[in-house]
Amino acid sequence: MSLVIVGSIGLDTIETPMGKRTDALGGSAVYGALAASYFTSVSMVGVVGTDFPPEHIELFEKKHINLEGMEILPGKTFRWHGVYHGFNQAETICTDLNVFDAFDPRLPQSCLSCKSLLLGNIHPQLQLNALDQIRQYRFVACDTMNLWINNTREQLMEVISRVDIVFINEDEVKLISGKSNVFTATDDLLTLGVRYVIVKRGEYGAIAISKDSMFFVPAYPVREVMDTTGAGDAFAGGFMGYLANISILDAESIKTAMRFGTVMAAVNVSSFSVEALAKIDTETIEHKYKELIGWT
Amino acid sequence: MSLVIVGSIGLDTIETPMGKRTDALGGSAVYGALAASYFTSVSMVGVVGTDFPPEHIELFEKKHINLEGMEILPGKTFRWHGVYHGFNQAETICTDLNVFDAFDPRLPQSCLSCKSLLLGNIHPQLQLNALDQIRQYRFVACDTMNLWINNTREQLMEVISRVDIVFINEDEVKLISGKSNVFTATDDLLTLGVRYVIVKRGEYGAIAISKDSMFFVPAYPVREVMDTTGAGDAFAGGFMGYLANISILDAESIKTAMRFGTVMAAVNVSSFSVEALAKIDTETIEHKYKELIGWT
Repeated sequence: MSLVIVGSIGLDTIETPMGKRTDALGGSAVYGALAASYFTSVSMVGVVGTDFPPEHIELFEKKHINLEGMEILPGKTFRWHGVYHGFNQAETICTDLNVFDAFDPRLPQSCLSCKSLLLGNIHPQLQLNALDQIRQYRFVACDTMNLWINNTREQLMEVISRVDIVFINEDEVKLISGKSNVFTATDDLLTLGVRYVIVKRGEYGAIAISKDSMFFVPAYPVREVMDTTGAGDAFAGGFMGYLANISILDAESIKTAMRFGTVMAAVNVSSFSVEALAKIDTETIEHKYKELIGWT
Repeated sequence: MSLVIVGSIGLDTIETPMGKRTDALGGSAVYGALAASYFTSVSMVGVVGTDFPPEHIELFEKKHINLEGMEILPGKTFRWHGVYHGFNQAETICTDLNVFDAFDPRLPQSCLSCKSLLLGNIHPQLQLNALDQIRQYRFVACDTMNLWINNTREQLMEVISRVDIVFINEDEVKLISGKSNVFTATDDLLTLGVRYVIVKRGEYGAIAISKDSMFFVPAYPVREVMDTTGAGDAFAGGFMGYLANISILDAESIKTAMRFGTVMAAVNVSSFSVEALAKIDTETIEHKYKELIGWT
């Protein structure tokens, strides 16, 4: 496989100003893998329960997502229920870890030497456990969230020091550093040795920052946002999926990755759950990519 | 004169997390005129009281700003006192209109046929009064704010229908239209006949939207923000100052104007009041402009 994605696989109940879905397919690994599947061959490492609907497995297979690393354990699949009052931040109504409580990523043999690895937003110790298994990876990236910044800072810092790319929300990079300026805040992560910090700014786009370069991409305009769940995961999936075909991590490849990530995030928020991510085609992705360049 | 700017001229008391200034030079016309003065010859139309410090007049003269349209009336100059808790929105502690209460813009003979006109953020009736005086202008632009959207909507809509370019904050364009999506909200202004809506997004940059084009510019990164007062005015000043040298309002000229506006806004927020705007040089502006292109 070219890209391995480790993360959550879940069934989400989501309420937004545009409607509601119950037990819809979700999870950081799922959004990432579906977005990446348009660019490269993907392997998904995660866990589901025996109640996981077979049609979702069919979708993964249709997208040629390798499932050797997806365990099926006795019990129920991870579930999350969130309500969006606006579109920026969901209020969590309930989280049932279920089989995810026992999750410890085991990368199958086929994934130990791959081109790239994306560690979705899960407990930093699990991210470290995955990192301990890999050999000869070209690019390794991680995502994270405020929960881990606040509660497991030391382990998170170790993860960050061991990856090439960090995906992080603007609020979170400020939280890590205790600085209110996004640029000075990012300096602190770069000194840990990470090569690119990708600061996600939601509807305002993203910034890629390295020690000697910077690149801004606006969000691709979406006139009817349905559900922003998984937008960051779809961004990271598109980004890392594109990079899996690239041999050098330089300013040009990062620009292209930022734009493809942006397009996949926009596709994702235009529907509930993974509805649009499952249906999009390469031609439309390329068209949106070119539009984005024309607008910047 | 190539660019005429109508707006407020004031003495601001400003408190930000970075410090305080008392009775510092401010006002929409002042920020706009200083920013524009690096690109074109500028005429400023406004009013001050007899207490207006002569060193400010000297600064305007040093920047070759034509003051034929600046009235000096008996009484005190307009004063505003604002406190910034973060950097996004100032809390107004007090506004003393003073001589500005009697302001009704009178464009001097030299300004009646000019290349471009920028109507700063003042009462829409005053903007209309200025519009009634002009002949043969190439480009006319206006700025506005939520106060006029809420209280003088009809007059504001008339202003918008009579200008080529509207500068407006993202929140304000949503307020005008009652729509929460910035792109659909902007449609409503375009149907009034305005050619370009420039949506200002503060630290996230700006979008230029016309019926058939769109252009995103990020904010130029500022690692130490001192005072955001006048950022939108400096943006509009740089934008319109650049356009004063241009004969056709097309997608390319708008892109360049957006970038120069962005640079002038960044220069402005790097100091209190107009300190940095007064001191910057053309070489530094050009350098920042090129940096911005490299980052997008």
